[in-house]
Amino acid sequence: MLNSQIDSSLIARFTAITGAQHAVTEPSDIAPHLSEPRGLYKGESPLVLKPADTQEVSAILRLANETGTPVVPQGGNTGLVGGQSPRPGQGEIVISLARLNAIRSLDLVGQTMVAEAGVVLANAQQAASDAGLLFPLSLGSEGSCQIGGNLSSNAGGTAVLAYGNMRQLCLGLEVVLPNGEIWHGLRALKKDNTGYDLRDLFIGAEGTLGIITAAVLKLFPTPSGHETIYAGVDSPDAALKLFRLAQDYCGPSLTGFELMPRIGIDFTTRHIEGVRDPLGEPHPWYALIDISSGQSQDAARAMLEGLYVAADEQGLIRDAAAAETEAQRQAFWTLRESMSWAQKPEGGSIKHDVSVPVARVPEFLTKADAAVLKAMPDARIVAFGHMGDGNIHYNISQPVGADTGAFLSRWKEMNEIVHAIVLALDGSISAEHGIGQLKRDELAAIRSPVEMAMMKQIKQAFDPKGIMNPGKVVAG
Amino acid sequence: MLNSQIDSSLIARFTAITGAQHAVTEPSDIAPHLSEPRGLYKGESPLVLKPADTQEVSAILRLANETGTPVVPQGGNTGLVGGQSPRPGQGEIVISLARLNAIRSLDLVGQTMVAEAGVVLANAQQAASDAGLLFPLSLGSEGSCQIGGNLSSNAGGTAVLAYGNMRQLCLGLEVVLPNGEIWHGLRALKKDNTGYDLRDLFIGAEGTLGIITAAVLKLFPTPSGHETIYAGVDSPDAALKLFRLAQDYCGPSLTGFELMPRIGIDFTTRHIEGVRDPLGEPHPWYALIDISSGQSQDAARAMLEGLYVAADEQGLIRDAAAAETEAQRQAFWTLRESMSWAQKPEGGSIKHDVSVPVARVPEFLTKADAAVLKAMPDARIVAFGHMGDGNIHYNISQPVGADTGAFLSRWKEMNEIVHAIVLALDGSISAEHGIGQLKRDELAAIRSPVEMAMMKQIKQAFDPKGIMNPGKVVAG
Repeated sequence: MLNSQIDSSLIARFTAITGAQHAVTEPSDIAPHLSEPRGLYKGESPLVLKPADTQEVSAILRLANETGTPVVPQGGNTGLVGGQSPRPGQGEIVISLARLNAIRSLDLVGQTMVAEAGVVLANAQQAASDAGLLFPLSLGSEGSCQIGGNLSSNAGGTAVLAYGNMRQLCLGLEVVLPNGEIWHGLRALKKDNTGYDLRDLFIGAEGTLGIITAAVLKLFPTPSGHETIYAGVDSPDAALKLFRLAQDYCGPSLTGFELMPRIGIDFTTRHIEGVRDPLGEPHPWYALIDISSGQSQDAARAMLEGLYVAADEQGLIRDAAAAETEAQRQAFWTLRESMSWAQKPEGGSIKHDVSVPVARVPEFLTKADAAVLKAMPDARIVAFGHMGDGNIHYNISQPVGADTGAFLSRWKEMNEIVHAIVLALDGSISAEHGIGQLKRDELAAIRSPVEMAMMKQIKQAFDPKGIMNPGKVVAG
Repeated sequence: MLNSQIDSSLIARFTAITGAQHAVTEPSDIAPHLSEPRGLYKGESPLVLKPADTQEVSAILRLANETGTPVVPQGGNTGLVGGQSPRPGQGEIVISLARLNAIRSLDLVGQTMVAEAGVVLANAQQAASDAGLLFPLSLGSEGSCQIGGNLSSNAGGTAVLAYGNMRQLCLGLEVVLPNGEIWHGLRALKKDNTGYDLRDLFIGAEGTLGIITAAVLKLFPTPSGHETIYAGVDSPDAALKLFRLAQDYCGPSLTGFELMPRIGIDFTTRHIEGVRDPLGEPHPWYALIDISSGQSQDAARAMLEGLYVAADEQGLIRDAAAAETEAQRQAFWTLRESMSWAQKPEGGSIKHDVSVPVARVPEFLTKADAAVLKAMPDARIVAFGHMGDGNIHYNISQPVGADTGAFLSRWKEMNEIVHAIVLALDGSISAEHGIGQLKRDELAAIRSPVEMAMMKQIKQAFDPKGIMNPGKVVAG
């Protein structure tokens, strides 16, 4: 049984591991660790521990395991499904990885980097860049999210199309297991077939099987040339055809393909300072296409021009603008990246983070729109995202003038409508944000008993006392 | 306890599942399932079952689990570590997946294919090619190895550099679990963060956790242009510099980078019919470099020429030949791909399938050569392979005129010498061939108790009776 009442003597034992200045008990100091970006969960915790290194994480878990004390690992606290939040009334201790923030090494020739869990993503990107290399993971929250959280949630973002998600960007891990033992798996090998794939079991496990303390990350050559084109298109179907053309024509030089609806451009230009629509006339949908070349800027430009000509011949593009400067390129991307935030001033927004096979994105949008508008005729659908990955952030903004509370009370109903269509198209109800608390019961409902049983067996084998981030992903 | 004495009534129960014509009991018909390519293991089995479909595989495992009957899944029987061989005296039933040989579907737009476990790799390549797409996995044994075996061993080959190994080429799986239950995980999604990564647990598990019956495989656009260059270089160090240059210059268009020693060229041109050295003068080492372009043959050629000029400026290349026709391209690759077989006529060969971080390949070769030649001064070292993956097939041919039996009796001694250097360089003792029987005890010796315990816990959770391919990877 878990111990949901931590007493002062136990707090003292935990505190002795990190030292008092790194054991937070003051409610006002704990508070930032309890809220989360969407305000869906309000956490509770008697203690936030900030260990200095892997050995201290190990000592904390050993003690937690011995005493049945539930723990919640936390990185930058930017997760969107409540995976990083301590649940109320459970006496869950938060373990912040923020102080494990060293880049332990960077191998220029092998193009790898060993980063600790608490390294902020932007700092990891910067360290790579300082060495003339690229760490491609790119997210809206990159200024505060951390590598450990990126790994535990198998983070995606806008560069997945070319470079893969976090799972593909990691070669090896160091993990503290629930009993405090340390797995030294920091291998930097591209090929290694020696037994079961333990690494991928921890990646995406949302801190329920152990605590990742460091990782070997893959780096890439920095492209010599970049081009970005913003194109107005008729429909998601035209965007899909354009994607296929771009994929064939550019091969792996196609490093981004995002889909955006007109309403998203309206919201963004209306609410985000400095953002303008690069095209004069409005279009129903837009594709934002990124091309990178290892050779030169000229080679990237030649590829872009060739793609434009081919797309124009096939009548796939209504109008397009190519970024002429790096500043313009950034401005095009700001349009896309601020689309999440631009929904806030329009009132409540019901979110979905779904994926379907790429070829079925247009079908998904047609069916989901019909079903949502049937249930809520004035809903404003803002569906955008990583078309090249089949990953759509299918968000629903409240009808103009509606009551936000009444609108948000229909969150679950809308989720059910949208997820039913996703599942009928063999899609995923959580493409990149994970399960956490938000989708735990839904996961159990949609997955087969066979699959849930396997997950529970793994949880039971790794964490028999159930101390690791309980109540997340699979039920304790 | 496993049942090592299968009686006639149990044989009859298994036979009833597949029908008598697909239940092989005649020793001469069983024989091909008992030998393996290197002749290291001579198997024994009372029964080879050839189920027609997933349901029959399920029925077989349900009965095996109920009766404690050990089973060995077998694909094309091309494995190099005895993973597919039934062990003598254990009463292990072979389950051949050969009849599950359908391509169930091929999605042109989504660029995926659902292939059953028994599809021969060359047939999967052909099915993709017939649809105008590419399935990039490429191995010497592609004419007989099967998709299920490729997945279970996480196969590598010559295209890993650009496309990844089998793990990266698979999106979803259908698996029969040891108790006969079927996991329907045939998802075709590029992003799906819904719980633990079960797929990657079965990939590379060598049939010890369940039987893969079908998979969703990723397909790719067929490149429009291909170029191959064969370059003589001074040393592995020069080859590494050339690799880095090619990686920077070509980015993901670099689709192959193989390293070969002069002695390998000597063996190949001497023993393989029709193979010639494309260069007039001999060089100490060679790099075989493959470039693909999604745009055109001209673009590939321009990239190749640019790379050549840059490499020449840096003095990295002694001499080079570019393939001028597709036939010449194939001839260059035959030189590389026949290097394994070309060692046979030279007598005994002691094999190593190792990897180190790419940047440490030259250091590995220097240290391993010194240690091997100290122990066996006349040994002929044939070290070649996938430089871009850090994966070297470090083979030792017997000294000229030596007794083959006496030479081969030193296999374990040589392994220990080479593997000690690999481990000191943070490398892997099995880069792509797996563990099987051959390296099972060595795995247990080199991995930490923490890591071995995790593997055993997983095995125990998935296969509590230990019926699945016992004695492979981890001890029962």
